[in-house]
Amino acid sequence: MCRECGSHVLQLLSCSTDPSFFLVAKMATAGKVIKCKAAVAWEPNKPLVMEEIEVAPPEANEVRIKIVATGLCRTDLYHLFEGMHEQGFPAVLGHEGAGIVESVGPGVTEFQPGDKVIPLFIAQCGECRFCKSPKTNECEKGWAADNPDVMASPEPRFTCKGKKVLQFMGTFSEYTVIDQMAVAKIDPAAPLEKVCLLGCGICTGYGAAVNTAKVEPGSTCAVFGLGAVGLAAVMGCKSAGAERIIAVDINPEKFEKAKVLGATDFVNPKDHDKPISEVLAEMTNGGVDFSLECVGNVKVMRSALESCIPGWGVSVIVGWTDMEDFSARPVQLISGRTWKGSLFGGFKSKDGVPQMVKAYLDKKVKLDEFITHNMALEKVNDAIELMKEGKCIRTVLSVSPQ
Amino acid sequence: MCRECGSHVLQLLSCSTDPSFFLVAKMATAGKVIKCKAAVAWEPNKPLVMEEIEVAPPEANEVRIKIVATGLCRTDLYHLFEGMHEQGFPAVLGHEGAGIVESVGPGVTEFQPGDKVIPLFIAQCGECRFCKSPKTNECEKGWAADNPDVMASPEPRFTCKGKKVLQFMGTFSEYTVIDQMAVAKIDPAAPLEKVCLLGCGICTGYGAAVNTAKVEPGSTCAVFGLGAVGLAAVMGCKSAGAERIIAVDINPEKFEKAKVLGATDFVNPKDHDKPISEVLAEMTNGGVDFSLECVGNVKVMRSALESCIPGWGVSVIVGWTDMEDFSARPVQLISGRTWKGSLFGGFKSKDGVPQMVKAYLDKKVKLDEFITHNMALEKVNDAIELMKEGKCIRTVLSVSPQ
Repeated sequence: MCRECGSHVLQLLSCSTDPSFFLVAKMATAGKVIKCKAAVAWEPNKPLVMEEIEVAPPEANEVRIKIVATGLCRTDLYHLFEGMHEQGFPAVLGHEGAGIVESVGPGVTEFQPGDKVIPLFIAQCGECRFCKSPKTNECEKGWAADNPDVMASPEPRFTCKGKKVLQFMGTFSEYTVIDQMAVAKIDPAAPLEKVCLLGCGICTGYGAAVNTAKVEPGSTCAVFGLGAVGLAAVMGCKSAGAERIIAVDINPEKFEKAKVLGATDFVNPKDHDKPISEVLAEMTNGGVDFSLECVGNVKVMRSALESCIPGWGVSVIVGWTDMEDFSARPVQLISGRTWKGSLFGGFKSKDGVPQMVKAYLDKKVKLDEFITHNMALEKVNDAIELMKEGKCIRTVLSVSPQ
Repeated sequence: MCRECGSHVLQLLSCSTDPSFFLVAKMATAGKVIKCKAAVAWEPNKPLVMEEIEVAPPEANEVRIKIVATGLCRTDLYHLFEGMHEQGFPAVLGHEGAGIVESVGPGVTEFQPGDKVIPLFIAQCGECRFCKSPKTNECEKGWAADNPDVMASPEPRFTCKGKKVLQFMGTFSEYTVIDQMAVAKIDPAAPLEKVCLLGCGICTGYGAAVNTAKVEPGSTCAVFGLGAVGLAAVMGCKSAGAERIIAVDINPEKFEKAKVLGATDFVNPKDHDKPISEVLAEMTNGGVDFSLECVGNVKVMRSALESCIPGWGVSVIVGWTDMEDFSARPVQLISGRTWKGSLFGGFKSKDGVPQMVKAYLDKKVKLDEFITHNMALEKVNDAIELMKEGKCIRTVLSVSPQ
């Protein structure tokens, strides 16, 4: 193991103060299969299993990344316990990571070994009609629209015990391989064990408020669900200048954190007999200007829409589910509300993530407040339990030493 | 009957060439109950009955209007055959009318007897927070949001056979009474038997494309349902500069008219085995930029949304129903589509209707092409049958002589 970059090396030719050492260490693993540890999801609804896996070298336009830290996101649990698509296993989950480039495949000019990076679950090829449009953050090359089970690589680069293992981003592995259009180079000063959260949850919530809802100064907002995404949405509403931010959750233990991030009012639906939309309408003289659903529950999506004021209320679906339809009466839209959805907070990923990293370094965006637990990758099942029980905001797992 | 304005007069004091006659004629009915004919809907799902009704004088801020012509709109049929809210009968239907002010109540300074006007089913008080917002055409005073059964007058001004008779706008009556905030004064040169259509259907469809969807030059649009509203939406898409306008209807007899109004492609879902959203996606490399649902069917609403391109597609619900929920999978919005609704085409009514009348007089908007039948109010049940059978676009009923 190279002490400098953590790569597996065949020969140690020089000491760590010799510049040539670094190059040799890279070359030692570059182009070769890496054996490393990963948490494998063998089948739905079962604990992850720590295994030794083989990670193929990067092919054309691909980057192999040593993952240093990763968050655990509710979407990982969704894949494991709710979506449970048979064809989605075995897999290495994890998509909220940050790491260091180990080696690059042919044709990669944008990255070099040693670069600090964040893998992106929406690509940004920069060339397709989506990337060229200011209206969307989707990328035609990297995201088969409407297909939630698309993998970052068409052909997985992981194997374990002779079987191919799928990867979404595969950040629950010490090494992963990703197309360069789905990797963002970030400031070398960024602490990876913090900014990994910008790979999904925080950008998703913050951007849903700022980019998708386009929250306006002086407006009234409601955020449904105070997990990391919802709390980040609260932070986004505040950053956009909202005057009143109503935090809604059935777990009142979340309210304190919501207050830290900017919430001004707190509503527990369990405290009320009437529909929450009526409660909010009474609090706000007819409804909120903007509502954000950060749960992934179709009933809550409806409540969030109905909580908006007619005429101009905008409701954004941020939480993910593909198990059920959302629904409402047509008059809810005909009377002037708008229903939108947000994917990765509307950020064009390669552009947006480095900007958010900079915003964190400049203390314009909070991240530390979201991290309630730190543990090693080996404890990932404990982290899953914490999230299932609503006892954490974010657990950051340390994957490889830096 | 006054030959000049059609008002019922008690005394004929002067000849029609004498200016004073006009004034006297007004004064003769002003302040008094008018007995006149109207088509009364006594109960749901039954033919309308021509009756003599009593129309009360206008009260404070109200205008009594002699209706000259009225369109029959699908929403009238909806009230009669689908909504069938028990509390909505007996009623005088009709809300797509044009007429002449007969008299005005106390406090009305904006209108004078003889003014040509169009009654408005959305008011514009000009003073409420909705009227002052550029984001909406709703009016807090004149439209109880989310209550589709609100009547223009809180207390109906019609009686028949000793019973109170509800009015929505009541344009199936020779006279009706409406609050001045729900009346638009129009160009005296406007032919009432044409511009009456601007009281609902044409503004609704045209504005849904221009104001709500905000169709862009060079874009691709799909319009679902080619009744008057849908055809007006086609006209709106063309006016906004759409390059391709796909007209969708299961009745191919509508396609010819759609072509006249600007449609470039024609799709009959009955000609295809696959979902219409797939057909449109194949025709358009992934979906249309804008879709407009002009049917009032929740399944079609879903198809219209799914026919939009991910990333930036905007679907607008224009057709009315409150019998069922619309629905879709969350990914349809999360992948970047926006779902909106449009009421009266997003036009601030008092401002927009006179502008649309002018656009018609300037030949920038078509109306004549929508009128397939003309008949007397007495034939209203024939007009209803024509619409039920899809054999008309618009029938204009002549109500009172001008």
